[in-house]
Amino acid sequence: MTYFSAAYHQACIAFQNDEVPVGAVIIRDGVMIASQPNRMRQKHDGTAHAELLCIQEASQKLGTQHLTDCDIYVTVEPCSMCAGAIANARIRRVFFGAYDQKGGGVDHGARVFEHTLHKPQVIGGIEEIKCAQLMRDFFKQKR
Amino acid sequence: MTYFSAAYHQACIAFQNDEVPVGAVIIRDGVMIASQPNRMRQKHDGTAHAELLCIQEASQKLGTQHLTDCDIYVTVEPCSMCAGAIANARIRRVFFGAYDQKGGGVDHGARVFEHTLHKPQVIGGIEEIKCAQLMRDFFKQKR
Repeated sequence: MTYFSAAYHQACIAFQNDEVPVGAVIIRDGVMIASQPNRMRQKHDGTAHAELLCIQEASQKLGTQHLTDCDIYVTVEPCSMCAGAIANARIRRVFFGAYDQKGGGVDHGARVFEHTLHKPQVIGGIEEIKCAQLMRDFFKQKR
Repeated sequence: MTYFSAAYHQACIAFQNDEVPVGAVIIRDGVMIASQPNRMRQKHDGTAHAELLCIQEASQKLGTQHLTDCDIYVTVEPCSMCAGAIANARIRRVFFGAYDQKGGGVDHGARVFEHTLHKPQVIGGIEEIKCAQLMRDFFKQKR
C-alpha cells in the first residue's frame, strides 16, 4: 500500500463513521508513525481533523513537538488550522489530494504557508478525482 | 477576577512551567468552561497551544464541536492554527492581548478570519503592555 492510499483508507474509515471523509498519515524514514481519520463527530471536537490528530499521535510517539523529518499525506487540502499546525510542527513535506476552494488554507483562502516562518514543501492534487469523489458522495447523502 | 486576568493568570502558569507564556480561557453565559496555559513542552506537542487546549476542553464539557455562544480570551494574538481552530469551532468573540507581528494570524500574517466562513468578532490589544512584557521577560531569560 502506498502512503497516499493509506491516507485514503483512513478517509474511507471516516466515511463509514459518518465523518467528513478526510484521512491522513505521517511518515518518518519510511515508517508510518501516525494514521487518523477525521473524528470531529466522534470526539465532539471541531479541532479533531485527521491532520491535527496525526500530528498529536506522531508527537506522542517521538516525544518531540518538532516533526522536522516527517512528511504528511492527507486526502484533502488542509484548512487554515491544520496548515498552521503543520507549520508549528515543522513538518517537512505535505502531500495532499483534492483541492478545497471553500475550506482549504494552503492553495486557497488564507494560504497559510505564505506567512509562516516554517514553509513545508507542498505537493497537491494527488489522486484528486478519487479524493474529491469521496467528499461529493458524502455530502450527496447528507442532502 | 476579570475573564482577561484569568487568561493572564494562565499565561503566568505557562511562564512558571518554562512554556512560552500564553494563557486562554473560554466563557459561556458568564461561566468559565475552559482555562489552559500553553503546554507544548509538557505534552511534547506543537499543537498544544492554550487556545486549542481550551477549545478541546470546552468541546468535551459541552459535548459539541460548535462553541457558537462562547467567547475566548487569550493573552497573545492567536497564530494561524489557533485562529483556524477558533473559526472551525465557530467561537463568537475573540479578545486578545498583545499583538504578534511574527507569529500572529489574525491581524498579521495569514489574517485567517478574512478567509474563513465563520468570522468571530475580534477585539485585540487588551492589557497589551502587560502581556507583551511577559513574553519579553520569557525570551530574555532564554538568551
